[in-house]
Amino acid sequence: MALPSHVKIVEVGPRDGLQNEKTPVSTESKLEFIAQLAEAGLQVIEATAFVSPKWVPQMADHTALMQALPRRPGVRYPVLVPNMQGYEAARAAGADEVAVFAAASEAFSQKNINCSIAESLARFEPVLAAARSDGVAVRGYVSCVLGCPYQGEVPLADVVRVAKALYDMGCYEISLGDTIGVGTPAKARAMVQAVAAEVPMAQLAVHFHDTWGQALANLYAVLELGIATIDSSAAGLGGCPYAKGASGNVATEDVVYLLQGLGIETGVNLEKLAAAGRFINGQLGKVPASKAAAALAAKTA
Amino acid sequence: MALPSHVKIVEVGPRDGLQNEKTPVSTESKLEFIAQLAEAGLQVIEATAFVSPKWVPQMADHTALMQALPRRPGVRYPVLVPNMQGYEAARAAGADEVAVFAAASEAFSQKNINCSIAESLARFEPVLAAARSDGVAVRGYVSCVLGCPYQGEVPLADVVRVAKALYDMGCYEISLGDTIGVGTPAKARAMVQAVAAEVPMAQLAVHFHDTWGQALANLYAVLELGIATIDSSAAGLGGCPYAKGASGNVATEDVVYLLQGLGIETGVNLEKLAAAGRFINGQLGKVPASKAAAALAAKTA
Repeated sequence: MALPSHVKIVEVGPRDGLQNEKTPVSTESKLEFIAQLAEAGLQVIEATAFVSPKWVPQMADHTALMQALPRRPGVRYPVLVPNMQGYEAARAAGADEVAVFAAASEAFSQKNINCSIAESLARFEPVLAAARSDGVAVRGYVSCVLGCPYQGEVPLADVVRVAKALYDMGCYEISLGDTIGVGTPAKARAMVQAVAAEVPMAQLAVHFHDTWGQALANLYAVLELGIATIDSSAAGLGGCPYAKGASGNVATEDVVYLLQGLGIETGVNLEKLAAAGRFINGQLGKVPASKAAAALAAKTA
Repeated sequence: MALPSHVKIVEVGPRDGLQNEKTPVSTESKLEFIAQLAEAGLQVIEATAFVSPKWVPQMADHTALMQALPRRPGVRYPVLVPNMQGYEAARAAGADEVAVFAAASEAFSQKNINCSIAESLARFEPVLAAARSDGVAVRGYVSCVLGCPYQGEVPLADVVRVAKALYDMGCYEISLGDTIGVGTPAKARAMVQAVAAEVPMAQLAVHFHDTWGQALANLYAVLELGIATIDSSAAGLGGCPYAKGASGNVATEDVVYLLQGLGIETGVNLEKLAAAGRFINGQLGKVPASKAAAALAAKTA
């Protein structure tokens, strides 16, 4: 029951959050958003994705964004790459940390990236090899760890197998994603425990969505197990592409409030973070989807 | 870490939820809402409050509502009473279970019910005495158990003292309310543990608000301690009167989804519950403030 004393937050708003937003956001606004997130104390900010603009138009400016992004000491800007071509483009644009993504669900892998899990892992092998020789750190995402929009239940053994494959391939951290936010605490715990039997707990992150309102309960449950890296998205950006009108990424503000209340260090200033969330939502013409941000705004009004 | 096998949900939507809604709701619609909640399997539904219509206009129809409310076997309809006058009116209208409310915060007591905590407890003594001789069960609420909108921090000793006073006076159950939803799991645990040293855990309920997005994490944390009674409001009705635009009562749909995922029996049908939430929100011209309800609606669309 010993909670970690410090949690690393991986801010995924500029990538995972924005990629699902239909309203185009200018490169300048994205840079301003990222700068405000860094200013708020976030030290890992997923900046963009080197994917085809045909699939993700919002990320079409990946090269311009990475080239223009001013580096700050102590802040890392990983970018998503789907394959070797993406890796090379990311490197050419100046990225020095990348992330790859596989699914624990065969059905999701086919629908989302149009290949089997095994094929997706095979695609990452040259990426990991190149990254190793380039001295580039690679993060690995596993999606659908607590359920899949297409196949429903996802066997724990499949989650463990994919997580272990990415780890064995050289990913320094494995982010376990509840892509459709269906998990509840006991299931989240069981999943993390199963993966932690094969990949060290310190190399695991959780990436929980709040679609069914369970993300913070799930986070608390796995913090109790020793999870100390959490992915979240400022203002809960992005919604859920698999459930129209439902919530998606857990809001970083809500996570920071939780961790602060638990006495866990994050290095993040909640007021500045909420301001970053308001800024980007202003660009999108939306209201931040974070309860803590709404409560803070009411308190300071 | 043994979770309870069954949780009793005390549905407070028709009272605690609706009382904060400005749009007038007809008695007929309230009766239909309550009927749908009972049909969904909720067995304790707080129906109304016998308070002055000057303070709570939405509850002005308390007598008409209680007189018209058809009783169902196995379903209880407690009503809130602030004093002996309210108790007598409730009894005259046919109520056979009541609830009284005190604050753990002196500042809140003064601002909210215009008297000290000690005075409020003194007011309840004749109510408890009359209820005892009438064979009427009395529930006791303690508000501000994790913080106060006026005084900020609330000493744990004050929470314990007020909870114990209500229990000693004869309340069969003490509902511990995080009125402004500021709590986080470790604080919620510490609070419940402190109270449970003086009042048996089986006689405790928690009444958590989701203002800062923490309610489900807090619920999970206290379920781990053995709490087995949870107050919640269908569709998160009511918002937060102390933080405009922020969330209030935790949504029953989100709680039921959590408990179902933990394998804990509630007897509640989530689909029917969500339909009740949609019905009453239709009357209010609003969208249900429940993430689980939104996800369910998207799934079944």
